[in-house]
Amino acid sequence: MGHLLDQPHHDGSELYVRRATPRLGDVVPVRVRVPASGTERAVWLRTVRDAEPRMVPTRLERVDADARWYVGDVPVHNPVAAYRVLLDEPGGYRWLNGRGLHARDVPDAGDFRLTVHDPAPAWMDTSVVYQVFPDRFARSGRETGTPPDWAQPAAWDDEPIASGPGVAQQYFGGDLPGVEQRLDHLQRLGVDTLYLTPVFPGRSNHRYDASTFDHVDPLLGGDEALASLSRAVHARGMRILGDLTTNHTGAGHEWFGRARADRSSEESSFYYWTEEEPGYVGWLEHASLPKLNYNAPALAGRMVEGPDSVIGRWLVEPYSLDGWRIDVANMTGRYADDDLTLQVARTIRSTMHALNPEAVLVSEHFHDAGTDLAAGGWHANMNYSAFTRPVWTWLVDPDLDLGFLGMPVSIPRRDGVSMVETMRDFDSTVPWAVTTHQWNMLGSHDTARLRTVVGTRERVELAAGLLFTYPGTPAMFAGDEGGLTGTNGEHARGTMPWDQIDAGGGPRWDSATFEIYRSLIAVRRGSRALREGGMRWAVVTPDAVAYLRETTDERVLVLVARGPWEGTVLPRHLLAPGASPENLYGGADLDVRPDGLGLPGDGPGVQVWRLA
Amino acid sequence: MGHLLDQPHHDGSELYVRRATPRLGDVVPVRVRVPASGTERAVWLRTVRDAEPRMVPTRLERVDADARWYVGDVPVHNPVAAYRVLLDEPGGYRWLNGRGLHARDVPDAGDFRLTVHDPAPAWMDTSVVYQVFPDRFARSGRETGTPPDWAQPAAWDDEPIASGPGVAQQYFGGDLPGVEQRLDHLQRLGVDTLYLTPVFPGRSNHRYDASTFDHVDPLLGGDEALASLSRAVHARGMRILGDLTTNHTGAGHEWFGRARADRSSEESSFYYWTEEEPGYVGWLEHASLPKLNYNAPALAGRMVEGPDSVIGRWLVEPYSLDGWRIDVANMTGRYADDDLTLQVARTIRSTMHALNPEAVLVSEHFHDAGTDLAAGGWHANMNYSAFTRPVWTWLVDPDLDLGFLGMPVSIPRRDGVSMVETMRDFDSTVPWAVTTHQWNMLGSHDTARLRTVVGTRERVELAAGLLFTYPGTPAMFAGDEGGLTGTNGEHARGTMPWDQIDAGGGPRWDSATFEIYRSLIAVRRGSRALREGGMRWAVVTPDAVAYLRETTDERVLVLVARGPWEGTVLPRHLLAPGASPENLYGGADLDVRPDGLGLPGDGPGVQVWRLA
Repeated sequence: MGHLLDQPHHDGSELYVRRATPRLGDVVPVRVRVPASGTERAVWLRTVRDAEPRMVPTRLERVDADARWYVGDVPVHNPVAAYRVLLDEPGGYRWLNGRGLHARDVPDAGDFRLTVHDPAPAWMDTSVVYQVFPDRFARSGRETGTPPDWAQPAAWDDEPIASGPGVAQQYFGGDLPGVEQRLDHLQRLGVDTLYLTPVFPGRSNHRYDASTFDHVDPLLGGDEALASLSRAVHARGMRILGDLTTNHTGAGHEWFGRARADRSSEESSFYYWTEEEPGYVGWLEHASLPKLNYNAPALAGRMVEGPDSVIGRWLVEPYSLDGWRIDVANMTGRYADDDLTLQVARTIRSTMHALNPEAVLVSEHFHDAGTDLAAGGWHANMNYSAFTRPVWTWLVDPDLDLGFLGMPVSIPRRDGVSMVETMRDFDSTVPWAVTTHQWNMLGSHDTARLRTVVGTRERVELAAGLLFTYPGTPAMFAGDEGGLTGTNGEHARGTMPWDQIDAGGGPRWDSATFEIYRSLIAVRRGSRALREGGMRWAVVTPDAVAYLRETTDERVLVLVARGPWEGTVLPRHLLAPGASPENLYGGADLDVRPDGLGLPGDGPGVQVWRLA
Repeated sequence: MGHLLDQPHHDGSELYVRRATPRLGDVVPVRVRVPASGTERAVWLRTVRDAEPRMVPTRLERVDADARWYVGDVPVHNPVAAYRVLLDEPGGYRWLNGRGLHARDVPDAGDFRLTVHDPAPAWMDTSVVYQVFPDRFARSGRETGTPPDWAQPAAWDDEPIASGPGVAQQYFGGDLPGVEQRLDHLQRLGVDTLYLTPVFPGRSNHRYDASTFDHVDPLLGGDEALASLSRAVHARGMRILGDLTTNHTGAGHEWFGRARADRSSEESSFYYWTEEEPGYVGWLEHASLPKLNYNAPALAGRMVEGPDSVIGRWLVEPYSLDGWRIDVANMTGRYADDDLTLQVARTIRSTMHALNPEAVLVSEHFHDAGTDLAAGGWHANMNYSAFTRPVWTWLVDPDLDLGFLGMPVSIPRRDGVSMVETMRDFDSTVPWAVTTHQWNMLGSHDTARLRTVVGTRERVELAAGLLFTYPGTPAMFAGDEGGLTGTNGEHARGTMPWDQIDAGGGPRWDSATFEIYRSLIAVRRGSRALREGGMRWAVVTPDAVAYLRETTDERVLVLVARGPWEGTVLPRHLLAPGASPENLYGGADLDVRPDGLGLPGDGPGVQVWRLA
């Protein structure tokens, strides 16, 4: 068993790139690390200006015990400045870009990129996001009166309907005061950013079919409940995010009502009308979700532009949301030959920035979001592609036969090499400043539950080990920390079993899993390298992966094995002279020998060591 | 030695996609070929609508002796409709896209694409382009008077200056009447599209520094010479293309003169002015080539929009150019945060289409032109990335140490696997309708000469074998057919040694090479499959590659080996029942045996067989 640390490396972290966001016209020195064993005759940067590559020489800046560090200048001549590394080597040159090393020419899509666009606010670096689906998190017990006509009331411990009749009507009655009462739980766990799926009224338990954006659903406690929750969250030093359907409204929305009643109304211009039934374009043909048309000049002012827009008004007091997650962001503004997505995203970001420069904007895009993320629109994306899917394929229960996120196939079981190649490929589609803020997830209200996918607490630990040590912002679905189960997105929306939680466990609540989550979150909080460091893959094998997270002052080694493997020996110099490895997580010791650091071949397990 | 014909396949050719260019809203049935040995449980198409993938089922349409053909519908909901194939197989699904087969998730950049944009005109399908650099092709012998002040006259047989003083001033005095006198040569060779590098006057032998776009350089014979040449070309059933610098003018251009003299002039808005020396932006910092600024409303009308623009007026009588090659197309309209390239390209195409729907528009982009080519701008690109570079790396003289197209490294020698992976990667960045019209080249006035790169006539034949059988439009630099040499673009601009050509050979003219080119061009002309067929890789090994070009009524097998290899046996059913292979090129027979078609392991050599 070898390792990958004898490969040249670059990423966008502070060891390699000066951290500040460049301005147009800046020149940014970037560093390349070439291992001592390298055979390079020279190292160049290929920068791109106005779509024309130029070769930029580097100079040898520093020689370490184990590596030569080259530095060269990337001119930020365009808003997105792409670059890659040319290694002039005796066997023929190689390229290094975000996808890795290539002993041949490759297209530009995987190149490193600097952008002039502000990254997500710095608090996202240290954040762990906790997603709450309001109907299912906690009931406050307050008097709510008669449920609305669409609702089919359920008992708190009922199983969510997975599909068919009632799936969107089953009504558990969680509310915002309930969430507020349970903030202690979030703090015990160590999360600090509460992300609420929609709180506007609709005609469903998920509320992605808003009937207005002007008020919080009275079933959830109304406007005052959100204001109160926001105050309570902020009083604890935490943050709170909303969820908005910029792509569509509900068919019951007040705008749509006016639009249908009067085709000469301003609201009529907000929708796409067609000759065919039902007479307008619905999201994925759902008549209940009429799609918004951003060609309408007046729509921007209502929805996304300025302090009085929907985007704007919930960011200010008394609601003071710290940002938005945008539903179906990939489709927002796109229809046939309309492609206004970037324009809408930039308008949203600009509106948010004017009201609160610390607000964050995260998109939902299940697929390849690369082209939308580099150009100053969304700060980051829900990272199904580069994280959830590849991790699932590595850790899926071998005996499970479960549909794979909307595809007509089961979740396949693949090896660690496949997982890492997929992660690198998708990571490389976005700038590093985005990678480090991507919402890495192991599931959401739109997927099966992690525990169901991987099958055992042991594998939940492996997945969580990756989640809390991988570059990006960990985002978890409430209940994952207790091992809630669910076979699809709808079935995954189980209630929090507070009686069992308060009792320290029960049939629906695994307190050992909670402890795993709590510990890993604490490890992440205690390490700047895990939050902001670079990412060097050290071991990529079918059953084990290991990587280094590194800043200028810290080096952390993470090892995740899904089963026994051969083990390997990493270079001795990874350990600071005179130092001993600090075991941050996991039971095994790193074997420090004269010839190197012996990685144990045990498995399954998660190990995190601080080396420097 | 195995082969690759047991892999599922799709491309954009007529066997797989209905040929017509779809309109927005059309539904296009596309076919997938799965070999009889496949283990698929089902085949799906992943289409994309408004950036949201959707899985579309296919149905089994036909079962051949060797394959199952599935068909499914791709909705052309957006102007560019991306799709890929999902193979549901017992070992876990695989994707098939333009980059090949993937046993894991991959980003979208390599997906197949249909577009609503018209492809290049149909005559490009059958065309072989012949590039002429006017100063070096032929002197008419007419009286031209005193050479201009910039020119340093050279004798016709002088060696071109490769670099340093005089490189752009060395003046051989070729002219357009000289080209017209030598059209017989083009017809003997079999080429039918004459592409002239710039004919506008400048202050250099290459004329990419135009001083006007209103007239042909009098040194070349003036406007009337171009009109006469065009008439002569068309009278022979051939075509003629021009070359335009939309990115910049010469510093001696009349527009720039007016702009500098009067900063309130309309022309002043055509350029980018700066504080630093020389006071304006030049192409790659060349003060001699001020860059054009397409933010200027009046520039479009002068340069690209409408019948009176530069683009327009040379397309009509008496000049009647059949299209334009656009110099530095990748940078045209791009500067800092301006990105007007697609807008300029679409305007050009629209101007051209209104005047002559049969006119062709080809870009110069040495690198990854994918994003510029799918969206209705340029019809095709000079295909350095997917063709010239990979072929050079496979066939480069092992003893040569020569700079690689503007890079600070020598041309590396790589194997056939590397070559084919590179070709597939870059081909996959553009729709098939573009791939089949890309200008495949083995060199140009901007590169070393093929003969110098590969070193021997034998390897020239291998390269030409690829050129005339690969999908795309072959584009050759005048003189390659006689084995002219040159170590870089400037040195490659040697004159045509007409005395030796007329004498059947000489020290600078290899008539055996001419015969190779002539024969291969004739083979291409005689086979619709070579011009329009699909592309299935059959053998990809370090020293030999083979592929099938297939239409509904023809199947051609091409084998190119750079040296001896193991040989292999291809499936017997490739040969039509009762048929014998027809040897279209090369000396070897295909070994037809009961168990298959034996590919000889001889090499080096080029073989082309018609199988059906």
